[in-house]
Amino acid sequence: MTVKAPRSRSRRAAAAVAPDLAAVGEGRRRVIIEAVEPAIDGGRYPVKRIVGDVLTVRCDLFADGHDELAAVVRHRPVGAKTWHEAPLRPLVNDRWEGQFTLNSIGRHEFQIVAWIDRFATWVHQLEKRLAAGQDVRVDLQIGAALVGEAARHASGADSAVLHVAEAALIAGDVDTAFAGEIHSLMAVHLPRRFATESEVYPVTVERERARFSAWYELFPRSTADEPGRHGTFRDVIKRLPYVAELGFDVLYLPPIHPIGYTFRKGRNNSLTAGPNDPGSPWAIGNADGGHMSVHPELGTLEDFRALVAAARTYGIEVALDIAFQCSPDHPYVREHPQWFRARPDGTIQYAENPPKKYQDIYPFDFESDDWQGLWQELRRIFAFWIEQGVRIFRVDNPHTKSLRFWDWCLNSLKAEHPDLIFLSEAFTRPKVMYHLAKIGFTQSYTYYTWRTTKHEITQYLQELTTPPVSDLFIPNFWPNTPDILTPQFYAGQRSVFLTRAAMAATLTASWGMYGPAYELMEHVPVPGREEYIDNEKYEIKRWNLDAPHSLRGFIAQLNRIRREHPALHRNDTLRFHRVDIDFHEHEWLLAYSKTSPDGKDIILVVVNLDPERTQRGWVQVPVAEWGLNSMYQAHDLLTDARYTWSGEFNYVELSPQAPVHIFCIRRLRRDERGFEYFA
Amino acid sequence: MTVKAPRSRSRRAAAAVAPDLAAVGEGRRRVIIEAVEPAIDGGRYPVKRIVGDVLTVRCDLFADGHDELAAVVRHRPVGAKTWHEAPLRPLVNDRWEGQFTLNSIGRHEFQIVAWIDRFATWVHQLEKRLAAGQDVRVDLQIGAALVGEAARHASGADSAVLHVAEAALIAGDVDTAFAGEIHSLMAVHLPRRFATESEVYPVTVERERARFSAWYELFPRSTADEPGRHGTFRDVIKRLPYVAELGFDVLYLPPIHPIGYTFRKGRNNSLTAGPNDPGSPWAIGNADGGHMSVHPELGTLEDFRALVAAARTYGIEVALDIAFQCSPDHPYVREHPQWFRARPDGTIQYAENPPKKYQDIYPFDFESDDWQGLWQELRRIFAFWIEQGVRIFRVDNPHTKSLRFWDWCLNSLKAEHPDLIFLSEAFTRPKVMYHLAKIGFTQSYTYYTWRTTKHEITQYLQELTTPPVSDLFIPNFWPNTPDILTPQFYAGQRSVFLTRAAMAATLTASWGMYGPAYELMEHVPVPGREEYIDNEKYEIKRWNLDAPHSLRGFIAQLNRIRREHPALHRNDTLRFHRVDIDFHEHEWLLAYSKTSPDGKDIILVVVNLDPERTQRGWVQVPVAEWGLNSMYQAHDLLTDARYTWSGEFNYVELSPQAPVHIFCIRRLRRDERGFEYFA
Repeated sequence: MTVKAPRSRSRRAAAAVAPDLAAVGEGRRRVIIEAVEPAIDGGRYPVKRIVGDVLTVRCDLFADGHDELAAVVRHRPVGAKTWHEAPLRPLVNDRWEGQFTLNSIGRHEFQIVAWIDRFATWVHQLEKRLAAGQDVRVDLQIGAALVGEAARHASGADSAVLHVAEAALIAGDVDTAFAGEIHSLMAVHLPRRFATESEVYPVTVERERARFSAWYELFPRSTADEPGRHGTFRDVIKRLPYVAELGFDVLYLPPIHPIGYTFRKGRNNSLTAGPNDPGSPWAIGNADGGHMSVHPELGTLEDFRALVAAARTYGIEVALDIAFQCSPDHPYVREHPQWFRARPDGTIQYAENPPKKYQDIYPFDFESDDWQGLWQELRRIFAFWIEQGVRIFRVDNPHTKSLRFWDWCLNSLKAEHPDLIFLSEAFTRPKVMYHLAKIGFTQSYTYYTWRTTKHEITQYLQELTTPPVSDLFIPNFWPNTPDILTPQFYAGQRSVFLTRAAMAATLTASWGMYGPAYELMEHVPVPGREEYIDNEKYEIKRWNLDAPHSLRGFIAQLNRIRREHPALHRNDTLRFHRVDIDFHEHEWLLAYSKTSPDGKDIILVVVNLDPERTQRGWVQVPVAEWGLNSMYQAHDLLTDARYTWSGEFNYVELSPQAPVHIFCIRRLRRDERGFEYFA
Repeated sequence: MTVKAPRSRSRRAAAAVAPDLAAVGEGRRRVIIEAVEPAIDGGRYPVKRIVGDVLTVRCDLFADGHDELAAVVRHRPVGAKTWHEAPLRPLVNDRWEGQFTLNSIGRHEFQIVAWIDRFATWVHQLEKRLAAGQDVRVDLQIGAALVGEAARHASGADSAVLHVAEAALIAGDVDTAFAGEIHSLMAVHLPRRFATESEVYPVTVERERARFSAWYELFPRSTADEPGRHGTFRDVIKRLPYVAELGFDVLYLPPIHPIGYTFRKGRNNSLTAGPNDPGSPWAIGNADGGHMSVHPELGTLEDFRALVAAARTYGIEVALDIAFQCSPDHPYVREHPQWFRARPDGTIQYAENPPKKYQDIYPFDFESDDWQGLWQELRRIFAFWIEQGVRIFRVDNPHTKSLRFWDWCLNSLKAEHPDLIFLSEAFTRPKVMYHLAKIGFTQSYTYYTWRTTKHEITQYLQELTTPPVSDLFIPNFWPNTPDILTPQFYAGQRSVFLTRAAMAATLTASWGMYGPAYELMEHVPVPGREEYIDNEKYEIKRWNLDAPHSLRGFIAQLNRIRREHPALHRNDTLRFHRVDIDFHEHEWLLAYSKTSPDGKDIILVVVNLDPERTQRGWVQVPVAEWGLNSMYQAHDLLTDARYTWSGEFNYVELSPQAPVHIFCIRRLRRDERGFEYFA
């Protein structure tokens, strides 16, 4: 007896419950795309790269069955109408990879497109059938149909070639069909039927200085030649040759706006200011104006623009400090009281971290009913200074302002001015620091000042220079700031100043220092606090730039070496090397290297972290990976000494007086006359 | 001279470029939610859990500034109108965690909601101000306003209590204000202003048998008592006591549909079948019907339903094999030729993996113009057997059918029948296997058969039992299948059959075997292939279930131990233990444990992987973690031997005759009369 399904009843039942297929879209897209990288939070935030970088894209690709796949990564600047394409090729375990070069700054986007490669599948099967001696007559007709389909989508010579191949296949002449460039023509012209498109992933492409920069911070009011006079922008212009001699390319100025009088801080952060105390530049605003005004004692807006222009002739960009807070005397307090938090007694809520009070500062209230007006005005402050020619901003304590605001503000500004660089001054928890980098900050201050041992430095740099962090966060290493003087400096040891600057300048491609305090080795803290005593934040200083103990020559050397060596212009090739002493890892000697993308420039840095004793050890050189022969040269770019090394482990010895080697490693070459030389 | 910004001009310029804030939505949502887990591909696919499981949810939470945060995870079955909430609490480094129990099967969803806790922030600051002896009169007014706001959103007794606290704060009486349960009332009633909501993340909650199951596969046609007769569903009903005695709870049948005649395979997969060869059950369909019909020689649809019902009385569920392919005689071939690929010569494309041809099988063409009709029909096959009472399906080679189809088909079926279980028979590349698990397959066959050494087993189990794999993939370990007989069995060593079954039954909570071939230790392969000779796929077998060498007693023991020990009902507590020999890790002895969630049930398994020699060693017991005293009991559940152990390392010795210990580890207890016992 035959048992059949009660078909009609079931069909009705099924129809009653069968879910709609509309949501599926084209159900014949058989290729699946997964695990696309690089991507930050699945593509929610852009990956950061520098113009000229080659972006390597990877993803998992697979389909049901055993058909051959083909895929491309397509990419374009956001807003462009047409895509560019680069092919993907399989690695192992269904992972695919492709590359393309990022040729312009601004926001870019990429997308994976993948499909069943019908022609490659057919060729692959045909080869196996031919090898097995099978009858392939029907298979050749199938191939002819594919080639004919491509021919109809091609034109001109391509179409003609394809039609010839089609005819050959119909005639059973495989050799003729495959004689031409049929594979590449088919790849171009056979329609990509049922292609799968991935999500679109964003990339922010920054200009070179976003990654490779050397910052010098100074207080303009301390730049006057004559004692007792308040320095001006014109004085800063006179200081430019000095900054250029030191080799810096970003000159960063603390806030340049009128300074409040109410609760003005005196010397050493005292609560009462004397009549001649200049106040902290971060207590912004008085009757002379606010964030879009210039402190009268510094000069005029025209003077400032002159400084920006003069700096440019030295290859130096002026960076401004943007601190979104107001002194009680700021015009906003009167004009826009709704942007501040009112207390029940009618006063405005000043900044505080109970029990500490900062009555000279009113924070903005990002929960204001007029938050939209506030956001627009704060954005207008950036826009104003952009109009004055500024393209680099250091943002003060961004982690105490609404994160959603930064996301909107920075990205909308960069959409108009993709050359903007924002440095985030957020010394806060790691997740918040990284989030600020995700939402638009270009560079970030780091924990470098608090990473001093070999283990700490190694661990932290590995975190910073590998994904996911390296895809979103560009570190800027500062050995000091006006706010931060860490304990390793308190003894005033020259060795510490040398090594901390050298490491900052070579571990990452961007570094900065607060001068002239640093090159003059200022090192006395407020007792119990990691901060300078007699801080320049609250007083006008006079610096003797020509003091014999100044490190200006060493700093200039560091920046020259940085400029001349492309290996030091990036972070992704950083690796640490073993230093042996008595067959153990050396505790005090730190060795690391960077190489240029073409492998030609190799910089090997060895640092003695012991400020008091000479240290000796054997540094391990990856001779095979660097393609070094039995002999090679280690040229110390600081002393110009040239050592001929051989083998893997080579002896180094560093004293507290000269605690750093910056070696350029050179291979042994032979010229056409047979002479050997290092290059 | 005062320098002011050219305000009006700038304002116009800014207005011209200021981007729209509409896309921002509520800009005052200050809390950021990131890195939510568990989530598969950022929440695109559901996490898998079993009903009764506690789901632990974690995420990063932070805001600008230093305010206190509060957060909940809210959750509900998909389609429910109201959410349930569980609080999140901070761990370290801005990571937060919460838990809730999954109380019903089906698709659930959860979402993080986080906001600034205004009251906690205020309390925190007030405490610091009071400790510093500051004037807090204004602060108390601020607090009173918060409490008053909550009071207005509360009602009844809560509102009254809050109003009392409000009045106390206005009066400056902090003690009275804080005397009641103000903190919990404020947490309930103070509006969650500007709360941030995360994406919604899906969870699929399966019934218990999705994770904990023991499968037995048999060919119904081989179950007749009399030699030469084709077995029927009625014979299978008679076999149920045997299956129940062995302790299995899923009885899985190869396809039960009419078998094709065209190109029918003969014994040992020969290309020509003899007149009495029954054919492969996977060559589905002939004039008697297709996927919704029953092979007449097995009986009727009523007989099948009787089998399903009879099995249920033994606590056994019948699982059907769904193989989406057709013999050339299948009614679909005539009725729906558009579902198959036509070749230029008018024939239908049969299955092949060139140069191999499988002319007895037509695959469906998932690129058919009528793909929607095909999808609906294939889904209707499942719906038909669901109507017959089947809730468990083993799906044949799902990786050779459109992945998008499975996503739609399985999830739409489970939306109606959340108790469905689909076992994926995909022995393919890892990414494809895991993708099938993501898109709706409940359980999956694994690489277990090819993981035989201690290192391979340890590595593979660690991959399977930790996220992300454990969140999406439920393994089902089979030591054999009708298609797979791996080389370790070829010598027919009893030890190998014992250890491979014992490991399958205890390493993961679901296992299965193809019997009676396994318990009768069938082990002769087709030369050069990992497949049984005289394969039951192509012929009717007669099995002597009472053969003295049968492992039925051992298998029954394994399944009894599994049922009685909750530690073996899950995979997440699996850990491997060191086994020492001469102070080195033992090469042949493998030790691992599982514990129940309450920690009461501890199972420690030790396996001798050497089929030829007795092996001895010292197994390391985590005495402190398991809360064991100086003495504890290792009760071998296979032999009933009870060993009193002490300390961390204990001696084990396993011969090829008895190559497995399954210990229940019992703690030393003392009853009220002072007698000591193990429990």
